[in-house]
Amino acid sequence: MKPVAVDAMGGDRAPGEIVAGARTAAEGGIPVLLVGRPDDIAASGAGDLEVLACTEVIEMHDDPGRAIRGKKDASVLRAAEAVRDGAASAMVSAGNTGAAMASALLRMGRIRGVHRPAIATPIPVPRSRPTVLLDAGANAECQASWLVQFAQMGAVYARARYGVDEPRVGLLSVGEEATKGSGLVKEAHALLADPAWSRGSGGKFVGNVEGRDVMSDDVEVVVTDGFTGNVVLKTLEGGMRFIERALLEAMTATEELRAAFEVLWPAVLPLVTELDPESYGGAMLLGVDGVCIISHGSSSAKAVVNALGVAREMVEADLVAALASAVKP
Amino acid sequence: MKPVAVDAMGGDRAPGEIVAGARTAAEGGIPVLLVGRPDDIAASGAGDLEVLACTEVIEMHDDPGRAIRGKKDASVLRAAEAVRDGAASAMVSAGNTGAAMASALLRMGRIRGVHRPAIATPIPVPRSRPTVLLDAGANAECQASWLVQFAQMGAVYARARYGVDEPRVGLLSVGEEATKGSGLVKEAHALLADPAWSRGSGGKFVGNVEGRDVMSDDVEVVVTDGFTGNVVLKTLEGGMRFIERALLEAMTATEELRAAFEVLWPAVLPLVTELDPESYGGAMLLGVDGVCIISHGSSSAKAVVNALGVAREMVEADLVAALASAVKP
Repeated sequence: MKPVAVDAMGGDRAPGEIVAGARTAAEGGIPVLLVGRPDDIAASGAGDLEVLACTEVIEMHDDPGRAIRGKKDASVLRAAEAVRDGAASAMVSAGNTGAAMASALLRMGRIRGVHRPAIATPIPVPRSRPTVLLDAGANAECQASWLVQFAQMGAVYARARYGVDEPRVGLLSVGEEATKGSGLVKEAHALLADPAWSRGSGGKFVGNVEGRDVMSDDVEVVVTDGFTGNVVLKTLEGGMRFIERALLEAMTATEELRAAFEVLWPAVLPLVTELDPESYGGAMLLGVDGVCIISHGSSSAKAVVNALGVAREMVEADLVAALASAVKP
Repeated sequence: MKPVAVDAMGGDRAPGEIVAGARTAAEGGIPVLLVGRPDDIAASGAGDLEVLACTEVIEMHDDPGRAIRGKKDASVLRAAEAVRDGAASAMVSAGNTGAAMASALLRMGRIRGVHRPAIATPIPVPRSRPTVLLDAGANAECQASWLVQFAQMGAVYARARYGVDEPRVGLLSVGEEATKGSGLVKEAHALLADPAWSRGSGGKFVGNVEGRDVMSDDVEVVVTDGFTGNVVLKTLEGGMRFIERALLEAMTATEELRAAFEVLWPAVLPLVTELDPESYGGAMLLGVDGVCIISHGSSSAKAVVNALGVAREMVEADLVAALASAVKP
C-alpha cells in the first residue's frame, strides 16, 4: 500500500500531535508520508518518517477560498496532490475544514457522476455501531438529487467501514410521514421511495427519521443537507460535552461524592471514550476521487492514529471504486 | 385572573395525568377550566373543578388539518375558543401538536402584523437560564422576514419569562461568519444586523451561533427555521435520553457500582430534573392572539402543573401585548 499523506501542519495542535500520531501509526504498520515544513516536522520528532516538503500553511482561521488560491504550496494542497499523482493512497488533515474540502475537490476531482461530495461523520451510538450522518457540512444548500447520492454514498461507506450488509438509510425530517418536512425533504423522499436508487449501494430506505433517531440503532445512515447535518453534529457535540462537564462537577463536589465517583469511573470511562469524537477517526469526504479524511481541528495524536487506521481500511476496501459503482447513473 | 383552559383530553396520558395536574395547580391558586368529555373528566377525579363540556377528541395520531375540519367539538378547539371568547385567559394542551397549533391559529387568530406564529421551546442549560429556541417546528419553510419576527418575539419571551433585560439573540448557522450558511440565513443575518428590528423587543443580535451554542449560556434566544429547530430539539432530547440511559446502565451493572451510585444519585438528581422536558413547562406558540402552551405529548401531572404556572406568569406579564408592541411595523 502506498503511504497515507498526512497534513502535518493542519490542526490546533499541529505539528506536534499530528507528527506524534503519524509516528505511532507508522510503528503499527501504516505507511505514512508527512506533508509540511521540514524544520517544523523534524522539530516535532518525526524520526525517519518520509517527508514531502512544502513551504506554506493554511491556518485554521484563514478564509478557505482565498487561502487555496493564494497559498499554492500549502501542506493540505500538497497532500491532495500526492493522492492525485499516485504518490499517496489517501490523505488525512485536521486543519481548516473548508480548505481540506476544497483541496481534495480541486486536486483529486470528483468521482464521475457525483453532483457534490459530502462530509460523512460517524455519530457514536453507545453499545452499537455509529450512525453515518451526511452531509455534515459540505453543502449548505442541496438539491433532492444530491440527497439521493448522499444515500448511495452513505450506504457504501457504512458497508465498507462497519460491515453492514444492507444499511438502513433514513431521511432526516420533522416527522415520519412522507408529507412532513421542507420541500427539499418531500422531493427527496419521493425519489428515495423508489428502490432503484439503491442498486449498487446495497442501501435500504426506511423513510423519514427524526433528530432523536440520529443517536439510536434504528438506522445506519442518516441523510440530510449540509446545513442541517452540521447543526445536528455540533448540537450533539455541544450537548454531550455540556452534560459530561455538568455531571462530572456534580459528582465530584464533595469528598464523599468523589470517593463514590472513583468507584464508578472505570465503569463509565468506556462510554466516555466511545462518545469522544477523537475515537471515531474523523469525517470522510465522500465523492472525491480519492480517500480523504478530515479530522477534528482539536485532534490529538490518538485521533490521528485512528484517522490513519480508517484511511488504511478504506484504501484496502477500495472505497472509491465502490462509491463510483454506486452512483453510476 | 380568568381561568386557564386545559385540554383535558390531549396527551398520551390524558385525561388522568392532565386532570391530576390541573387539580394540583388549582390547589396552588391557579384558576382552571377543564375542557373535555364530562364523564372522562369526572372519572379522573376532577372534584369541583370547572368543566367546559365537549364531545370530541383529536387523537395524537390524527392528521391535524383533517381533524380540525372534522371534529368541530374537539376539546382543543373548544379550549382555543374559550380564550378567543374571553372565557379563559390562556390555553394549555399536551395533545396533538399540529392540532393545538391549528386550533390556536384558527380560533384566536394572529397578533396584528405577525407573519407566522412560531413555537418557542426552552432548552435547559445546566446551572443557567434556559435558551429559548424558536421556531421549534411550526414552519418547516421560512422567509428571512419571519426569522426577524422570531427574534423579536423570542426576545420578548425571554424577558417576560426569565427576566433577561437585554436578551442576546443568535441566528443558528454553520459558522460564526456572516457569510456562512444557507441563503435564508445570510439574508436574515443582514436584516438582523440592523438594530432597528430590536426596537420594542429589547433584544440584541449577537450574530450567528452554532449548534454547540444552543445548550450554552452564551445566548438567551436562538432563532432558526422550524425544520432546523425541530431537528435540533429532537436531536438533543434523543441524545440526552440515550446518554442518561447508557450512563445509568453502566453505573448499576454490579452490586459494588450500585452502592457507589446510590451515594452519587442525590447529587445527580437535580441535574437530571433540570434536563427533563417535564420541568420547563412546555413550548409556547408565540404570535397568536392569546397565551397558548403546547406541552410534550408524554406530559405527566407534574408537567401540567408547570405548564399552568407558566401560563399564569405569561398572562400576568401581559405577554401578548408585549409581543404585539415588539412586532409592530
